[in-house]
Amino acid sequence: MNKWYMNPGEQDDIVISTRIRLARNLDDFLFPSKLDAATKTQIGGIIKDALDGCEPALNFTDMSALSHLQAVSLAERHIISPEFTVQAEGTGLLLSEDESVSIMLCEEDHIRLQVMKPGLDLDGAYEEADSIDNKVDGKVNYAFDDGIGYLTSSPSNLGTAMRASVFLHLPALTENGRISDLANTVSKLGLSISGVYGKRSSPIGDIYQISNRLTLGITEQTAISNLQSIVMQLIAQEKTSAQRLLEDTAGQDRVFRALGILKNARVLGGTEFMQLISLVRCGVAGGLIDIPIEKINTLIIEMQPATLSVTNSSIETVAQRDIARAEAVRNSLSQ
Amino acid sequence: MNKWYMNPGEQDDIVISTRIRLARNLDDFLFPSKLDAATKTQIGGIIKDALDGCEPALNFTDMSALSHLQAVSLAERHIISPEFTVQAEGTGLLLSEDESVSIMLCEEDHIRLQVMKPGLDLDGAYEEADSIDNKVDGKVNYAFDDGIGYLTSSPSNLGTAMRASVFLHLPALTENGRISDLANTVSKLGLSISGVYGKRSSPIGDIYQISNRLTLGITEQTAISNLQSIVMQLIAQEKTSAQRLLEDTAGQDRVFRALGILKNARVLGGTEFMQLISLVRCGVAGGLIDIPIEKINTLIIEMQPATLSVTNSSIETVAQRDIARAEAVRNSLSQ
Repeated sequence: MNKWYMNPGEQDDIVISTRIRLARNLDDFLFPSKLDAATKTQIGGIIKDALDGCEPALNFTDMSALSHLQAVSLAERHIISPEFTVQAEGTGLLLSEDESVSIMLCEEDHIRLQVMKPGLDLDGAYEEADSIDNKVDGKVNYAFDDGIGYLTSSPSNLGTAMRASVFLHLPALTENGRISDLANTVSKLGLSISGVYGKRSSPIGDIYQISNRLTLGITEQTAISNLQSIVMQLIAQEKTSAQRLLEDTAGQDRVFRALGILKNARVLGGTEFMQLISLVRCGVAGGLIDIPIEKINTLIIEMQPATLSVTNSSIETVAQRDIARAEAVRNSLSQ
Repeated sequence: MNKWYMNPGEQDDIVISTRIRLARNLDDFLFPSKLDAATKTQIGGIIKDALDGCEPALNFTDMSALSHLQAVSLAERHIISPEFTVQAEGTGLLLSEDESVSIMLCEEDHIRLQVMKPGLDLDGAYEEADSIDNKVDGKVNYAFDDGIGYLTSSPSNLGTAMRASVFLHLPALTENGRISDLANTVSKLGLSISGVYGKRSSPIGDIYQISNRLTLGITEQTAISNLQSIVMQLIAQEKTSAQRLLEDTAGQDRVFRALGILKNARVLGGTEFMQLISLVRCGVAGGLIDIPIEKINTLIIEMQPATLSVTNSSIETVAQRDIARAEAVRNSLSQ
């Protein structure tokens, strides 16, 4: 079955994906950090039962049964949080076949439900998350306060307990250095922006996640609509900058050389791959290169180190992984 | 009409071309350095007349009528010597349509006849040069001494007055650093080896010219046979080194990245082009890349700066030339 990220979406020349994440807790239990493994397992069972017959169907995975590589691969694909790769006993994962819907069971909260959509689709993602949330809500008692809203383990999520995120590819705004100014502006508007891959101080691949920070005293709809309007402005600014970059022969040269290397290299490290695919994605978005953007997005997800290793059992060393990455990229881009 | 270098030749995975050059002087005149323009023109006329009806037909060019760019382009293509680009009054050039036969009139000697062949073909080139030489010899009196042989302006050419050269592509021996040892060995055997492009101290493109140095007390046949045997040894050594280089994934990676850049770049400087095409040529010679080697050789000749500018009248700046080079290379390699 196709994964969710293999499909096109709105504004997908610049917006890679949209994510809605809801945190929920059951009223009858302490927060997960205070629970033993058996109780966590019990809670997981309650939630699994509550979602029986859910559309899409969610498959259960006992986190402690996974290899570390499999867990890291889930985090690379943003299906679980990096913290959840520790795989404490009793924690679990519910995941739809296309990987668009996932629920971490007994991570920081009892329920961490997320819905991913390709391109910009905050309303669509929220609707689907809300409908799954309602299904559970009808069968369990949520920890909820009429004045505050949903109660969460961390005070920063109190209220809507919703984190809406948009993943943007902003190569031109990174190139011309405007991204740091924009991060400051966005921060003043109650949103946060950070690099998705690499270290926070030096993100690679020019992919950024922009999210709402406020959850208290604000409705989900207002938070989403604020985020949507900032994202539309970022898209417009990136397009203007990208046009300027790609009008220039030197800019075109960089984009096409990146394509030439990706289509021909025999060894491709993870960081170099991200730098080159970012240039190629910029060229695709700008109409210079004719490759479906979903194919680029798929490579960005599937060429991450642990994910590549999980899907290719012959990889045992970094050197083998870099050769396998080069081969997979070549095959994908030459089709 | 096709140029001579567009055809395949023996050992042409490593040997780019073979050249025989003969120096001759007319007995009734002083050496060119002692002559005025009118007398040089007179000598040019005598030689032109002597070669009337020659096969291949030789077209006359008054060197002083050329632009400097045209003259430099002739030197880049090894049709004339770099010194001959000064275009003194009275000097001329006889050139066959396929550019394989050329005669500089009143360069250092009255006649500097050369025959170029693709690949390794010392005997073929010598035979043709000898036959043209005989044609002239039947109509003029050469400056010749029974004891010494042909008399030449520079003592270093006395005797056979023949310089036999083979142009070799030796990327692997350059890469592993063995080329400087080989240059010493070759020198002790009475031959000289030097880089063809770039500065002598740092040749670019890994192309070397190996020539006989001795002309006195040795027959043409012996000089040619010595050169041939050293060239065969260099070919064998290069093949062994290249095989080792291309067995390695890192070596293959370099070769294919070079191909990817050449097929995609929008801006390509002269030095970078030579470095990349050398890697690609190595890959073609090693059977990794399927491109006719003559196409590579043709690019090496036709992408040189002055030659590119001469054939592309819209080029006025270095930046425009680098764009035009990238476009021409792309078009050639994508066919």
